[in-house]
Amino acid sequence: MINPSVLQKLSRIVGKENYLDSQEDKITYSYDGTPLISQLPEAVIIPHSKEEIAQIVTLANEVAFAIVPRGSGSGLSGGSVPVENSIVLLMSHWNKILEIDTENLTALVEPGVITADVHSAVEKLGLFYPPDPGSMNICTIGGNVAENAGGLRGLKYGVTKHYVMGLEVVLPNGEIIFSGGKSVKDVAGYNLKDFFVGSEGTLGIFTKILLKLIPKPETSKTMLAYFQSRKEAAEAVSAIVAAHIVPATIEFLDQTTIKCVEEYAHLGLPTSIESLLLIEVDGRPSVVEEDAAKIVVLCKRHNCIEIKIAQNAVEAIRLKTARRAAFSALARVKPTTILEDVTVPRTELAPMLERIDSIAGKYNLLFGTFGHAGDGNLHPTCLTDERDTNEIHRAESAFEEIFNESIKMGGTITGEHGTGLAKKKFLPAVAGIPAIAMMQSIKSSIDPNAILNPGKVFSIKPKCEGSLPRNREQIKKFEELGAWT
Amino acid sequence: MINPSVLQKLSRIVGKENYLDSQEDKITYSYDGTPLISQLPEAVIIPHSKEEIAQIVTLANEVAFAIVPRGSGSGLSGGSVPVENSIVLLMSHWNKILEIDTENLTALVEPGVITADVHSAVEKLGLFYPPDPGSMNICTIGGNVAENAGGLRGLKYGVTKHYVMGLEVVLPNGEIIFSGGKSVKDVAGYNLKDFFVGSEGTLGIFTKILLKLIPKPETSKTMLAYFQSRKEAAEAVSAIVAAHIVPATIEFLDQTTIKCVEEYAHLGLPTSIESLLLIEVDGRPSVVEEDAAKIVVLCKRHNCIEIKIAQNAVEAIRLKTARRAAFSALARVKPTTILEDVTVPRTELAPMLERIDSIAGKYNLLFGTFGHAGDGNLHPTCLTDERDTNEIHRAESAFEEIFNESIKMGGTITGEHGTGLAKKKFLPAVAGIPAIAMMQSIKSSIDPNAILNPGKVFSIKPKCEGSLPRNREQIKKFEELGAWT
Repeated sequence: MINPSVLQKLSRIVGKENYLDSQEDKITYSYDGTPLISQLPEAVIIPHSKEEIAQIVTLANEVAFAIVPRGSGSGLSGGSVPVENSIVLLMSHWNKILEIDTENLTALVEPGVITADVHSAVEKLGLFYPPDPGSMNICTIGGNVAENAGGLRGLKYGVTKHYVMGLEVVLPNGEIIFSGGKSVKDVAGYNLKDFFVGSEGTLGIFTKILLKLIPKPETSKTMLAYFQSRKEAAEAVSAIVAAHIVPATIEFLDQTTIKCVEEYAHLGLPTSIESLLLIEVDGRPSVVEEDAAKIVVLCKRHNCIEIKIAQNAVEAIRLKTARRAAFSALARVKPTTILEDVTVPRTELAPMLERIDSIAGKYNLLFGTFGHAGDGNLHPTCLTDERDTNEIHRAESAFEEIFNESIKMGGTITGEHGTGLAKKKFLPAVAGIPAIAMMQSIKSSIDPNAILNPGKVFSIKPKCEGSLPRNREQIKKFEELGAWT
Repeated sequence: MINPSVLQKLSRIVGKENYLDSQEDKITYSYDGTPLISQLPEAVIIPHSKEEIAQIVTLANEVAFAIVPRGSGSGLSGGSVPVENSIVLLMSHWNKILEIDTENLTALVEPGVITADVHSAVEKLGLFYPPDPGSMNICTIGGNVAENAGGLRGLKYGVTKHYVMGLEVVLPNGEIIFSGGKSVKDVAGYNLKDFFVGSEGTLGIFTKILLKLIPKPETSKTMLAYFQSRKEAAEAVSAIVAAHIVPATIEFLDQTTIKCVEEYAHLGLPTSIESLLLIEVDGRPSVVEEDAAKIVVLCKRHNCIEIKIAQNAVEAIRLKTARRAAFSALARVKPTTILEDVTVPRTELAPMLERIDSIAGKYNLLFGTFGHAGDGNLHPTCLTDERDTNEIHRAESAFEEIFNESIKMGGTITGEHGTGLAKKKFLPAVAGIPAIAMMQSIKSSIDPNAILNPGKVFSIKPKCEGSLPRNREQIKKFEELGAWT
């Protein structure tokens, strides 16, 4: 428990009106988009300047409480769920777009800006900010940077880390730095800026974000391809990549997901097919026409039974709804939706889909799987009920097997959602103990009192050790101490 | 001095034939491509397995000597110059391309592979590895990763960091990790892999590198545009970017460089003009034609006096020679060539060129300036003689002013060469003391005995402090200790 006098100090730093500690407020901020995980914070603090944040950080070091930064709380790995002895630092009202530089192709934004608001602001000027996570209408840029969010356009355009050119950060010691800038190349010193991206709120609090923009693609073409067999859909994806076509988007839905989407959105999708692909090509008109035509040929060659091509923007939105609605549609089926995020090398897409299916069958669970097929990034989604402890237990076992399969295939446990609380126990299997020891050493060198989002990504290192363990024996000792999970 | 018994142990680890300590050998490896900096190593060690490297690292921790990893030694910031009490760890014979995966578009290589060898190997298969530093015919991929090397194709394709998907690294504690993999998206844990890129041999020794490949552009068009005025050339660059055209390459040469290149390579360049631009567009044939036509119009609009367009591959190579020969051509003029690497936001290109000229004039120095105009990355190059201590002193003052001007314009002191030894004293001005404190903390948490390339990028942190200084006072104390320069 944080001492009441400390809470009073916090209230004085931000002003009474920006200090929330009613039970309702605490409950509101006790969870994020991740199922099964919640914890009450001791208070919710709404800062209005970086100097206030620096004061809060300094106080946390002095009296030892934890700070959990939060944007919209739409994360799916528990990154913004409070921990014991913590306050929530609410950044969602830092929502100003400070500058769009049309000559250097950059946007300077506050961390609380909604991702879709960046899209619309820059697109009006003929520019483009590619990252488009599923939650883009509610999530914040700050959260996107903290988790290195992906989205539907990753295949061609990459993910959030490819678009962060600079960060203003309040460090755990209360210092404020700006790392990066408008120069497109910069190798002065260690690359701190990129290291903050994806650090899940554990290394600093972002107060300004400089985004890279690109010219808006001149045109695009959206297609929906139906496949009787899931394997053939996966093979079509491989064939498109092998033909050196780089669509902006290749998204996949399995039969369960198609059925749920159709029930939810009534788009006229055939519910008897095993899978569909949403494909979008964009760029210059001549190239888009050429690529679309080649993709139609390749899909047909892999026994696509029908391919719908949007004739205009309204139709394109309708086709994209089939994919955009997937999560919401699945979430309606049962009270609890556990959406996961395994990513495999593209060539392993078909085998991974097979394995997910057989694991779901083995544990007698209802799974819908969709995701970014072009990136090998799948969202196997378990539709369950958290009150059914036996089923939840089976789901946990199933996901553990799915993660292990992914790792065996050279894949990873999370492609775009982050490790957070939800997946930290699987991190050793994918990263290895020596790499986690390195992460922990870096964390404790920067944040020795573990005030920033402690326990996320990995557990805090035991105080007995100041730097990277030097040998197998020391690492073993750490393992025995349970320092890794 | 390293104790002879330690050197004997090193010789036993790698075998006598892989242990060099003659005076000739030591001199050979006492410098790299950076002028004015050299230091004899105590020995040169040629390891043949990662296990040998781990043994060497372990020994270094036990008895305190420094390890300086080295590829071809073509670096321009002193990154591979030995330090006191050091051995050179020579990786240039680790030159195997281990796998090219044409389905997942990756290449697994050893760190000593020459960059141009990667180009030719993957291009045979219709694939493309974009980073092409000026030294690509001699430099190694390991060095490219250590320095986050750029090149001529950065404008469209980015730099080395955008193409590193995985790294096998021997850590300073002797552990061996593989960070990253063939999954195109991966956010499991901190992004160690990208943090190693550009860490200049101070955080680990690379033993395998997994590179991202892309489809080879179908065609390209190379142009050489002559401008009477330098300002108009810079404005043409801005106009091209503002028109949302993204050429692979926009390179700039000033008059001094043009004259030197013409004298050296006899390409028929007009030596009366103030500047020329080498522009290359690549991609799909229809787009390349369109873009090339637009660029011609834009260059003419900015008073380009002539524009040569290569009609075939041989002509393209001839036009590119104008730029590729720049460094060698300048280096012939005087005994010592100090090539720098300032980078500014693209909009500041013309003002930066002005400032470089006036600073060169002020200090009565001969400068040739060329570089990656599309990236705002300029190489102001001082042609001098290191025996003329007065002139060298003036050159140092001139570069200091150039760096300060760059920083004032929102630029940086190095775009692609690294900080190394040559620029570490300017790092505080661009990164700030709190950020350097963070870098030092990370370094000492991972490499507490400072065995890996110590003194590069920044000075080693005084032993008195184990983690990030917590406040202004502690930072001040560090400053007084001279910990930053």
